[in-house]
Amino acid sequence: MFSVMINGLPGRMASLLAYAISVRDGFQVIHESLTGPDTTQKYFEDSIRLHKPTFHEAVLKKLASDFRDSLIAIDFTHPDGIMKNTQLYCENRIPFIMGTTGGKRNELFRIVEESEIPAVISPNMSAPIVMLMDMFEYAADNYPGAIHGWEIRIVESHQAGKKDVSGTAIAVGEILKLMGVKYSLENIRSVRDAIEQRLMGIPADALGGHGWHEYSLVSPDGNVQLRFKHNVNGRSTYVDGTLMALDFLAVKKEQGFKGVCFSMTDVIRG
Amino acid sequence: MFSVMINGLPGRMASLLAYAISVRDGFQVIHESLTGPDTTQKYFEDSIRLHKPTFHEAVLKKLASDFRDSLIAIDFTHPDGIMKNTQLYCENRIPFIMGTTGGKRNELFRIVEESEIPAVISPNMSAPIVMLMDMFEYAADNYPGAIHGWEIRIVESHQAGKKDVSGTAIAVGEILKLMGVKYSLENIRSVRDAIEQRLMGIPADALGGHGWHEYSLVSPDGNVQLRFKHNVNGRSTYVDGTLMALDFLAVKKEQGFKGVCFSMTDVIRG
Repeated sequence: MFSVMINGLPGRMASLLAYAISVRDGFQVIHESLTGPDTTQKYFEDSIRLHKPTFHEAVLKKLASDFRDSLIAIDFTHPDGIMKNTQLYCENRIPFIMGTTGGKRNELFRIVEESEIPAVISPNMSAPIVMLMDMFEYAADNYPGAIHGWEIRIVESHQAGKKDVSGTAIAVGEILKLMGVKYSLENIRSVRDAIEQRLMGIPADALGGHGWHEYSLVSPDGNVQLRFKHNVNGRSTYVDGTLMALDFLAVKKEQGFKGVCFSMTDVIRG
Repeated sequence: MFSVMINGLPGRMASLLAYAISVRDGFQVIHESLTGPDTTQKYFEDSIRLHKPTFHEAVLKKLASDFRDSLIAIDFTHPDGIMKNTQLYCENRIPFIMGTTGGKRNELFRIVEESEIPAVISPNMSAPIVMLMDMFEYAADNYPGAIHGWEIRIVESHQAGKKDVSGTAIAVGEILKLMGVKYSLENIRSVRDAIEQRLMGIPADALGGHGWHEYSLVSPDGNVQLRFKHNVNGRSTYVDGTLMALDFLAVKKEQGFKGVCFSMTDVIRG
């Protein structure tokens, strides 16, 4: 039996994971959670105590002692807290899954590699999307000039609240650029308008939470087109992927891995 | 300077290649070509003599002697002739590119491997399509269960004259099945109707020659979709790929490769 600390409550991803893991064999959700400085709730669902940053260090130290060797943390907090949280998990030898984006990624990896624990760190927890991005990386490594001089248009749609351009769209654009495609940020169109989103086929109940991406590539003579889409409604694919990562990390911990930072690519390969 | 024998004239692919190679530095098109039993023309463009199957063996023997070490053959003939042609190229030590589909593929590879020449054999000469299929194979090798239980619809459109289902669509379906997708032949819809093709966006002047393929995948909970399209109008991408294969094969011959059968994947990797 593993005990799972879900940090980032009462945020959406953390909430969904708390429900999903509470009914999962072999895991129990513990009744403590790290939250942000602005959270006014003291408890999540009247049962999980939410601890503000001032207390994070003390809480993790106590939990590490109480649950010695059976604790795993899942972090869906905030970019501002990611570096400190990683440091604290490592110091207290709590294996963790970091689903929070942002932070200095190379620094995150280094902290884990110098620690006594295994971790899974990925800015995207969705298995099919991670797989698709890895397919693009494979192609860029193996076919550097196969689509040289091709032109690209990327269209991405997210909920109106998302102010910045999709990081996934930018990442894929940069990979395709390595293959010779004429890519720049200007080739990305970000759709945030609800009417256009409905016309694109996004379900009404997904307007508040979705990520649709389409990459359209055209050969220099115009005779060949390649198109790739990955459309996600809601958050279930990220929950599914995080549960895969949890199963994976539990096995790696049992096998005694220390100071190893795994990616979602490792998780999906199994 | 390499001399190139283009077999399959006056067929469309062979004709396009004859023009393209005639203006290419480092290559000249020779004035003999192997044709089929039903061709009534004796010359292509008044200059290239077309030889019927009865004379193939004698013609290749003479050319091998005349052009010793500078001859490469390109074969866009007919499935019925592919085994015999391969045998003859090998016996006469003429490196060749086999773009003709059909035949017993494993047998083709074996014949080349027992010969003194290098060859490029591929049922599809388009670099972007070969790359995309290789990306699918990579994913199937590395993520066997990543899209387990997903459903698929494949739509493919070709010119009205094509009676059978797209072999590329079937091949991709089989690869995706390895990844856990619920695939059967019934999931492929073949479009041959000109009005529907125009509505799909296929240009009017490509109705007579195109290959559009769309693979749509849906996760079991319906929240994630992946889509892949490769749309080709006309034959320029196959011509471009064959020219890449020609450059590649010329280099391999100069480097002394013998009894090696290369694929288009090898060609694109360079």
